[in-house]
Amino acid sequence: GDEASIYEGRADYEVQTLDMEDIPATKTKVMLNLANPGAAFRWWQLPADGVGLARMEFVISNAIRIHPMALVNFDSLTDPSAKAEIAELTAGYADKSAYFVDKLAEGLARIAAAFYPQPVIVRMSDFKTNEYAGLLGGAAFEPTEENPMIGFRGASRYYSPRYRDGFALECKAIRKLRNELGFKNVVVMIPFCRSVAEAEKVLGVMAENGLKRGESALQVFVMCEIPSNVILAKQFAQHFDGFSIGSNDLTQLTLGVDRDSGELADLFDEQDDAVKWMIRSVIGEAKAAGAKIGICGQAPSDHPEFAKFLVECGIDSISVTPDSFIAVKQNVSEAENAKGAAGGAPLG
Amino acid sequence: GDEASIYEGRADYEVQTLDMEDIPATKTKVMLNLANPGAAFRWWQLPADGVGLARMEFVISNAIRIHPMALVNFDSLTDPSAKAEIAELTAGYADKSAYFVDKLAEGLARIAAAFYPQPVIVRMSDFKTNEYAGLLGGAAFEPTEENPMIGFRGASRYYSPRYRDGFALECKAIRKLRNELGFKNVVVMIPFCRSVAEAEKVLGVMAENGLKRGESALQVFVMCEIPSNVILAKQFAQHFDGFSIGSNDLTQLTLGVDRDSGELADLFDEQDDAVKWMIRSVIGEAKAAGAKIGICGQAPSDHPEFAKFLVECGIDSISVTPDSFIAVKQNVSEAENAKGAAGGAPLG
Repeated sequence: GDEASIYEGRADYEVQTLDMEDIPATKTKVMLNLANPGAAFRWWQLPADGVGLARMEFVISNAIRIHPMALVNFDSLTDPSAKAEIAELTAGYADKSAYFVDKLAEGLARIAAAFYPQPVIVRMSDFKTNEYAGLLGGAAFEPTEENPMIGFRGASRYYSPRYRDGFALECKAIRKLRNELGFKNVVVMIPFCRSVAEAEKVLGVMAENGLKRGESALQVFVMCEIPSNVILAKQFAQHFDGFSIGSNDLTQLTLGVDRDSGELADLFDEQDDAVKWMIRSVIGEAKAAGAKIGICGQAPSDHPEFAKFLVECGIDSISVTPDSFIAVKQNVSEAENAKGAAGGAPLG
Repeated sequence: GDEASIYEGRADYEVQTLDMEDIPATKTKVMLNLANPGAAFRWWQLPADGVGLARMEFVISNAIRIHPMALVNFDSLTDPSAKAEIAELTAGYADKSAYFVDKLAEGLARIAAAFYPQPVIVRMSDFKTNEYAGLLGGAAFEPTEENPMIGFRGASRYYSPRYRDGFALECKAIRKLRNELGFKNVVVMIPFCRSVAEAEKVLGVMAENGLKRGESALQVFVMCEIPSNVILAKQFAQHFDGFSIGSNDLTQLTLGVDRDSGELADLFDEQDDAVKWMIRSVIGEAKAAGAKIGICGQAPSDHPEFAKFLVECGIDSISVTPDSFIAVKQNVSEAENAKGAAGGAPLG
């Protein structure tokens, strides 16, 4: 749910009144990145083309609080204090796993409802192991890693015996969202998928869990955030309906710079020529293969002029944080006009 | 120096007698990866075209044992036990920094001498922060990092106030090797160089320390181990005389897989199509730009058939661990013959 903090004193703030008619229409879709379901209804009035990135991590950390494997294996938990706390949180649930499924579906439903019938792309869990270990009962199920950023995360978890049962609960929540609650606008997205072989394994596990790509109009997207996703885009495009560029991780791996390191902040540059090459290249490859291609990384939110570069490359959609939506929308519009005036290929 | 361990019981071993005349000549240079100076004279009889990778880390860990910044700042060290131990190790040195320079030059001289006049490519220090912090007096000079593998390492250290004075000692040791001891066969190599701007900074710091590229025939190479090195190879080639592909790190970053993680061992694959694309691409770009291109990563040592792929790509040199030298040399010879028979471009 929502959280509020109370600060002493009186805050300075500015009220901006926006006339929706001042926001230009664009052919490039501009979507929103959301994590907190409580915020969804705050932003529904923005003329967004849906949610390009709905992160489930906020729901798990705040509403669920328990590691899914600790729910699946509740009876055999050995840490008495974690077990007691989990019992209290899940009071009323005979099947502890159902607690995870219900809460996750409920949180995501608030986002899916606020933007229905526009697409809402839900990314499956992308915690690092240290983050997952911090959930209640989680430490027992997570390995300790030297470099969690390039460790056991994303797709590699979903078919691993260490997390496979947890991923099944995530799939169950998506099924509930789409099939019981009727939010067919929900698209699934797989993060950190390192190889084509991994893509096949994950799609297989999803199908076993009742989420078969193409069935009931289910679309499955993949994050494009590892250099291999760019280099082998043509092969990845055979397994997914679309790509969403994660510019944070893609920059991190293209330049070999930990994105969270203060020490290296000057070296983390989404606008480095090597990163721009990656982005331009995957947009071209995706379009050639008939797959959709968007971006949901921070780059266009942090640097609104970056949107111009993306439009020039011919991207289909740009997903940004709500506070930067209007600036990006305006930049996209200007870039589209400039592109049209320069006599480029017709948009759309 | 050399280290030996004594084990109980009697070891099984096999003596292989090699006739040097059975080792085929190859047009592709086959070189050696060496770290332990004590091993250099064990391998000098191999018909190697020099040392493609001389790692200075072994000398620092075993012969020096002290963090260079702790020597530069000896008088202001606050840890009394580290200070006492350093004082003991450097007894006889009024200038503590000279201890580092002498020992490093001495260790590297043993390698440079064993293969003189063939080239010996010395890589400047490439410890991770956690490894550097483990040296005597080191903890005070190193930040703690969440992901040291993509952290403060390689080129980024050399111009940073945190290590710049330590790098100056490394430069001084190279100057001593080349100018005082006369080992002009020593080539310098810069690891983990993330961007063209970093290349310029590091070459500037080297020049300030008396190592100017081109002066006294000094050649400077760069590791090609970050995707940006491949994508922007043409630009990097303007600043360096050659590239050496570090297949371990390049695989790690192309696939986003921590190379040391047991959990992910199945995903670390130097033969993934994305990694092979990177290698093929940089070989082509380097040759087009007139820069030398070799490989010093583990891939051809671990998978001798990988050498065939490299020869097909037209690589100039392959540097391997001594124990795999003969197998690689034979594989290279076969690949060269096959390439010639297939009517490819003439080699050399």
